[in-house]
Amino acid sequence: MLHLHHLENSRSLRIAWLLEELGLDYKLTIYKRTKANLAPKSLAQIQPMGKAPILEVDDKILAESGFIIEYLLKYYDTDSNLKPNDGKTWEDYTYWFHFAESSAMPNLLMRLIFSKVVERSPFMIKPIAKKIQTSVEQTIISDNINKMLDLMDQHLSLNKWFAGNEFTAADIQMYLVGVGANTGNSLDKTKYANILNWLKRCESRDAFLRAVNKAGKLDF
Amino acid sequence: MLHLHHLENSRSLRIAWLLEELGLDYKLTIYKRTKANLAPKSLAQIQPMGKAPILEVDDKILAESGFIIEYLLKYYDTDSNLKPNDGKTWEDYTYWFHFAESSAMPNLLMRLIFSKVVERSPFMIKPIAKKIQTSVEQTIISDNINKMLDLMDQHLSLNKWFAGNEFTAADIQMYLVGVGANTGNSLDKTKYANILNWLKRCESRDAFLRAVNKAGKLDF
Repeated sequence: MLHLHHLENSRSLRIAWLLEELGLDYKLTIYKRTKANLAPKSLAQIQPMGKAPILEVDDKILAESGFIIEYLLKYYDTDSNLKPNDGKTWEDYTYWFHFAESSAMPNLLMRLIFSKVVERSPFMIKPIAKKIQTSVEQTIISDNINKMLDLMDQHLSLNKWFAGNEFTAADIQMYLVGVGANTGNSLDKTKYANILNWLKRCESRDAFLRAVNKAGKLDF
Repeated sequence: MLHLHHLENSRSLRIAWLLEELGLDYKLTIYKRTKANLAPKSLAQIQPMGKAPILEVDDKILAESGFIIEYLLKYYDTDSNLKPNDGKTWEDYTYWFHFAESSAMPNLLMRLIFSKVVERSPFMIKPIAKKIQTSVEQTIISDNINKMLDLMDQHLSLNKWFAGNEFTAADIQMYLVGVGANTGNSLDKTKYANILNWLKRCESRDAFLRAVNKAGKLDF
């Protein structure tokens, strides 16, 4: 028995999508965000980190997106349809699979947090908060995000999917990066056309549409 | 031919350590940080993201710690000494391997960046920068880091290493988290005794000592 604990508008959409790609039956529980836009405390009663996704597999409680994806592939994708086994496609798959959470998401998360800090600062503090945000953007965040988008776009100019010609779980893992980088449709449509076209390819997959229909779409 | 491009006092120490655990010969090039404590631009000439570690394997350029570790294990740890293949130990290994970069490092990185922001703020701005830091710590960072340390310590109270009785690459991946959380020896020695003892076990391994001897130690 598979039971996905999903936080609305969060990275756990990826697990619903993967479950749909694998054609698995699963129970879905959707959690609302708090007023502060965080995960509700009830998730911590299921797994101590208190984050989504959490996947119950029989009597096991699995957390951490990367681990849940690896677990589902190991036990339910026994023909390796969604993960290459060897060679160049395995290398691309594994590089981008780790890239998503290690290189990409921390920068997007920092951008989000600094913009929230400015947004929520009282009137008197806002100009200084804005100044701090600009400084961190200039020193670290912008440069990292631009390099990352350039690399992604270049790779997708040569490859239909992140691991080559075939859709894999690396696309599911990277999808959040694409959506996060395109917050408010902010991606330059000419410069990053390959990323935007790849996002459209992801979003037109039947399994993706079924997942969104059940779990709701991402809107950062 | 293996050639590790290592940035001093950075996460790329992990790759030197893994290479030593595997008993492999490798060329080591050490890069100094810039005055702003960042990676020098020369790394971007080797791999476009411009971050360490970068590992050259014959004519291949590998980046991203998680991928480099997986690559080295796949091709050089053919007896699976450093990665379990199945069952509970595989589950623990894979959970903590992803946990390190996905759940843990972004929070430690944010703490570091907010403390640098305060440190480098001009005199007039410092009190407001400090106020912003405190607010973000209280809303997000502290809670996440405390939960993470509690979970790590509890796991290490029951397990000698992160994947159980045997040392694995999950310990290498998690080592940076332990060191990052213990910056300035700040970890509570009673509350987190199991984490501190595990750090000591890591640091007393022959392969770790050889890596530090060549690549320098971490000191955040």
